[in-house]
Amino acid sequence: MATFREIGEFGFIERIGAAALPPAVGVCCGIGDDCAVLACENDRVRLITSDLMVEGVHFAVEGSNPGWLGHKLLAVSLSDIAAMGGEPREAVVSLAIPPDFDVGFMERVYKGLRGLASRFGVNVVGGDTTRSTGPLVMNLTLTGEMDQDRVCYRSGAARGDLIYASGTLGDSSAGLKLALGQAVGLSEEDREFLLRRHHRPEPRVALGRALAASGTVTAMLDLSDGMASDLRHICRQSGVSAVIDGTAIPVSPAFRRFREHSDACTRNLEITGGEDYELLFTVAPGGRDDVEALASEPGISCIGRIVSGDERIYIENAQGLRSELEARGFEHF
Amino acid sequence: MATFREIGEFGFIERIGAAALPPAVGVCCGIGDDCAVLACENDRVRLITSDLMVEGVHFAVEGSNPGWLGHKLLAVSLSDIAAMGGEPREAVVSLAIPPDFDVGFMERVYKGLRGLASRFGVNVVGGDTTRSTGPLVMNLTLTGEMDQDRVCYRSGAARGDLIYASGTLGDSSAGLKLALGQAVGLSEEDREFLLRRHHRPEPRVALGRALAASGTVTAMLDLSDGMASDLRHICRQSGVSAVIDGTAIPVSPAFRRFREHSDACTRNLEITGGEDYELLFTVAPGGRDDVEALASEPGISCIGRIVSGDERIYIENAQGLRSELEARGFEHF
Repeated sequence: MATFREIGEFGFIERIGAAALPPAVGVCCGIGDDCAVLACENDRVRLITSDLMVEGVHFAVEGSNPGWLGHKLLAVSLSDIAAMGGEPREAVVSLAIPPDFDVGFMERVYKGLRGLASRFGVNVVGGDTTRSTGPLVMNLTLTGEMDQDRVCYRSGAARGDLIYASGTLGDSSAGLKLALGQAVGLSEEDREFLLRRHHRPEPRVALGRALAASGTVTAMLDLSDGMASDLRHICRQSGVSAVIDGTAIPVSPAFRRFREHSDACTRNLEITGGEDYELLFTVAPGGRDDVEALASEPGISCIGRIVSGDERIYIENAQGLRSELEARGFEHF
Repeated sequence: MATFREIGEFGFIERIGAAALPPAVGVCCGIGDDCAVLACENDRVRLITSDLMVEGVHFAVEGSNPGWLGHKLLAVSLSDIAAMGGEPREAVVSLAIPPDFDVGFMERVYKGLRGLASRFGVNVVGGDTTRSTGPLVMNLTLTGEMDQDRVCYRSGAARGDLIYASGTLGDSSAGLKLALGQAVGLSEEDREFLLRRHHRPEPRVALGRALAASGTVTAMLDLSDGMASDLRHICRQSGVSAVIDGTAIPVSPAFRRFREHSDACTRNLEITGGEDYELLFTVAPGGRDDVEALASEPGISCIGRIVSGDERIYIENAQGLRSELEARGFEHF
């Protein structure tokens, strides 16, 4: 008997993906990207994505800010829509709730969710509410829409393309370490910044749309499992390798101070840490000026380039020494 | 502090519904019907519905048929699409799985899900897979499509309308009692029939579409919480009352024999028992012949009529004596 602990999330997706129905009329992309992509009228496509959050795995109830939980539940799906370059539309929310759970807490979760929803014009149109015999479980399914010829898949990266990341990386996993009680000599301001980056990620919807509209992006996804792990998806699905400039990975001042005060095993969080919810994308060399002209908030950084090869990721240090990056990142089991 | 045990599913929906965003452009119907209904191009609407199944609440893993679990996970959402009169389209599936769970079991769940999906032309296009710290949790979101002017809401029933149910009622809850070990002197054939009706419901998609296309249906929903509880939704949302003919409620021969062998508290399962996944709908008196002409498999039965009044449900026995039906049915907490 194989268990999920042994095969992991991606092993399971491979197994069920292998038994998938043959490519069906109207399905531009099924399992294997940030969203499923479905053809509709007038050369438009619909996007659909689903994210599950489980108490004790993705969040704690005790001591948490319920409004931030609701915000994050929607933000992670908005980030998937952003990663295709789409416009978000409607959300449905399913909740499995322990019977003695505080109703007021869940109302505040909804308030946080609705606050973010209204900023992005998302309508929360229904769902399902039931009892849980265990943890609080929340699932959100989000739809989106966009022009078919602008969809940014993971599979279009080619040799010579430049690799970009938005914002700064590693903040969220540093924030998680702080939330789990890791004592680090940081100012209250730095702590707040990193915790907020973990608990209240800002989905890059406007940037994703602008990048898709620019027509210069060859591949894109959102950083949810850690840059090393997510870049590997682009490499596998595009059949290429990547070289990262270790000195070019964008990090925040707060993260830099966190790193200085931390032990060795947290030194690479900007590469291996999950839940950044920034965009990682590739651009053909000729598109460099166009892309760098359109990016404003949160800013983008060129962190490397695509090379030919068999789906490996190399990192170069300040001395130009190249080493291969192990496949790592957040493992869901 | 109010708990979910105290306020229940519908109490919570009222609370979050009250704080809903103002009716938004393109949302024909949000929370409060079997599906959300969203306007799209060419006078078409998209439907979306979500259903959550929690181990220990909706099913047991031990001793269960995994293929049937997958079938049921999709069937309950297909039944919601059927209740609007729509055509099903795509599904996304989210799973929270204990780490030591058997992968082969989940593959068989998917096989059952895909078997039903292929019968109804549903594409399973993605989802999310994560770890659970407690029970196995499965969520399925299903989309559908139909003409905007054919959507069957819960709110259109009017005085004088006839009330119909499809198929037979009570089989599923009798099957649940058998599954939970209730000893009843039934033939193996009857046991199998009732267990199958519980574990492997057949969604009434073709009937729902034919009813919607006929243009005679004034209100419709699917029977998931028990006829008494579900009919009350139609009465509340239409502002009417209902009189049920207790002798006209359709029951199967197997259910009749189950009832004869059972104790008093299981006598009214055809009225109070949940998970029938049959359709309950109302028809203006002039539409009677049209509706009865189109219904083939699974057959429909006229079980009562809509009267004016303040959202009460009465039941008449064989002697014509009328008594008011208490609000009862499946309570999710």
